[in-house]
Amino acid sequence: MDFNLTSLSFLNESKFNSIDTSKVYDIVIIGGGPAGLTAAVYAMRKGASVALIAKHAGGQVAETSGIENYMGYRYINGLELVDKFKDQVLHFTIDYDEGGEVEAIEDEGIKKVLLKDGRIIKSKSLIIASGKRWRKLGVKGEDEFIGKGVAYCSICDAPFFAGKKVVVVGGGNSGVEAAIDLAKVAKEVIVIQNLDKLTADKILIDKLNSFTNVNFLYKTVVREIIGDSFVKTILIENTELLQKSEIDVDGIFIEIGLVPNSDFVRGVVELNSNGEIIVDCSCSTSARGIFAAGDVTSVPFKQIIIAAGEGAKAALSAWEYLLNEE
Amino acid sequence: MDFNLTSLSFLNESKFNSIDTSKVYDIVIIGGGPAGLTAAVYAMRKGASVALIAKHAGGQVAETSGIENYMGYRYINGLELVDKFKDQVLHFTIDYDEGGEVEAIEDEGIKKVLLKDGRIIKSKSLIIASGKRWRKLGVKGEDEFIGKGVAYCSICDAPFFAGKKVVVVGGGNSGVEAAIDLAKVAKEVIVIQNLDKLTADKILIDKLNSFTNVNFLYKTVVREIIGDSFVKTILIENTELLQKSEIDVDGIFIEIGLVPNSDFVRGVVELNSNGEIIVDCSCSTSARGIFAAGDVTSVPFKQIIIAAGEGAKAALSAWEYLLNEE
Repeated sequence: MDFNLTSLSFLNESKFNSIDTSKVYDIVIIGGGPAGLTAAVYAMRKGASVALIAKHAGGQVAETSGIENYMGYRYINGLELVDKFKDQVLHFTIDYDEGGEVEAIEDEGIKKVLLKDGRIIKSKSLIIASGKRWRKLGVKGEDEFIGKGVAYCSICDAPFFAGKKVVVVGGGNSGVEAAIDLAKVAKEVIVIQNLDKLTADKILIDKLNSFTNVNFLYKTVVREIIGDSFVKTILIENTELLQKSEIDVDGIFIEIGLVPNSDFVRGVVELNSNGEIIVDCSCSTSARGIFAAGDVTSVPFKQIIIAAGEGAKAALSAWEYLLNEE
Repeated sequence: MDFNLTSLSFLNESKFNSIDTSKVYDIVIIGGGPAGLTAAVYAMRKGASVALIAKHAGGQVAETSGIENYMGYRYINGLELVDKFKDQVLHFTIDYDEGGEVEAIEDEGIKKVLLKDGRIIKSKSLIIASGKRWRKLGVKGEDEFIGKGVAYCSICDAPFFAGKKVVVVGGGNSGVEAAIDLAKVAKEVIVIQNLDKLTADKILIDKLNSFTNVNFLYKTVVREIIGDSFVKTILIENTELLQKSEIDVDGIFIEIGLVPNSDFVRGVVELNSNGEIIVDCSCSTSARGIFAAGDVTSVPFKQIIIAAGEGAKAALSAWEYLLNEE
């Protein structure tokens, strides 16, 4: 690597301050995934005063194992990419809060971010990059057996199912990726898909088809999750034949998409019918001075590289807003 | 690095085929910068048949020295990042043409890409990611002295001006970056800016201000470039005082922005008044089946990470278009 003079200034140590509730920041960023961390780098480079509130650094990326479509790395592990992003943020002296959870936002010109721990953070502008969380099936037994056979994060939990029989609900990229993770360790994997085919990328489907311990149930939905101290059985239904049946399983991974973390901005900015924050191509929301980026927004595709690009846009838009307000 | 089974399949050799003019591709991508290369990775992962036409692999990134705002690398050299992107594309068996230049596009449902060498490439959909080129001052002497003291790419040409007196025209990020590159080697650098202040990022301005051999002329424009076999003098004008004067210089770097490479699609897709291809938030243009991404488009900010994100969007939009057309 050709480290020249330009880079030497950046070989200083990572450092950050805690968030100062007495000051009014230029930009407060909510969310520590690819969008939020990229927004932080772009905002700091402009010389803005920035606070970053990250419930979990890395967001969903931290729960991803192998990443092959982030440009610049043919293959990188999720946690490793998060570390690189975070390192890039923390070489600036940023006010950073990891673990902070936002309760609500108030927009009185000056924006107020109310944290669950009672702190109130003030800012001239906001970037909301709070991402998404797992979507639940909403069936009987789901909540009861979370952590007792019901799982959402295959990266986190697949190892617990070594040698077991597990079901994956969902045939999109998330479902097929989870099935691949599980096929490597489980005795048997059954993919349950409500449609008549998988909708994941071909490269992922090909990879899944290379395993011999994976079976598929199409046009099928899960109606109930049954067990005692742990999941034992799931009740499924074929939606074409309207036939119900039971399968004995050791675990069930629910991979049917994600829900935006936008509850705390409901009523402050416009959301679409999916609960996503509606943004234009510059990441502006319906509220002046509030920008949004990444998976929490209406931008159609949810990808790390896209979220990062949107984070950069949001920071540059916020900066333009601040200059125009001066 | 945690190379698991998933990644081992990708340790095969890079390989590519030449473009096949007898076939109709799913997606033809025009442009080999961050947007085009990212679009290629996303399109290939979907299993589409893809041809990529890149005049220069890497686009403007190949002319950038130190990159500090591409997430994942705290510092990386432009050519090195291009190599990583290109490597990521070429681990797929893609039909790839480096050096190909597009003359025109015809849209008859099936899209035809006419190359300057006479080849015609057919495709069901197109992604235009042809980027931008240096904007010219448009003054007398500029064309005459290109390569004889008039330069645009400081990364490429700064070393030729070691110990010399050079002018940089432009006070935005490009101008200030060029001035930094030149200040390291030149005897004296004069930054000429038409506005009353620099508009570059603060971090760049701070860096430039750390040099003692840089001077600034504000509210000033260049009217003429004068020389014999090489540039000798520039004629400048203070736009406030309306005073003209001459400065003897050894070279002049013109860093006043970029012009979109969209001439070949004029009349096929809608352009804005800057000549940029108008896209919506999904990278769709005004023509069905033609998508665009990166610096050639109306997307407001021109950054590597943004172009890469847009390239991913364009590929995913093109793929959805192909599925709906089936």
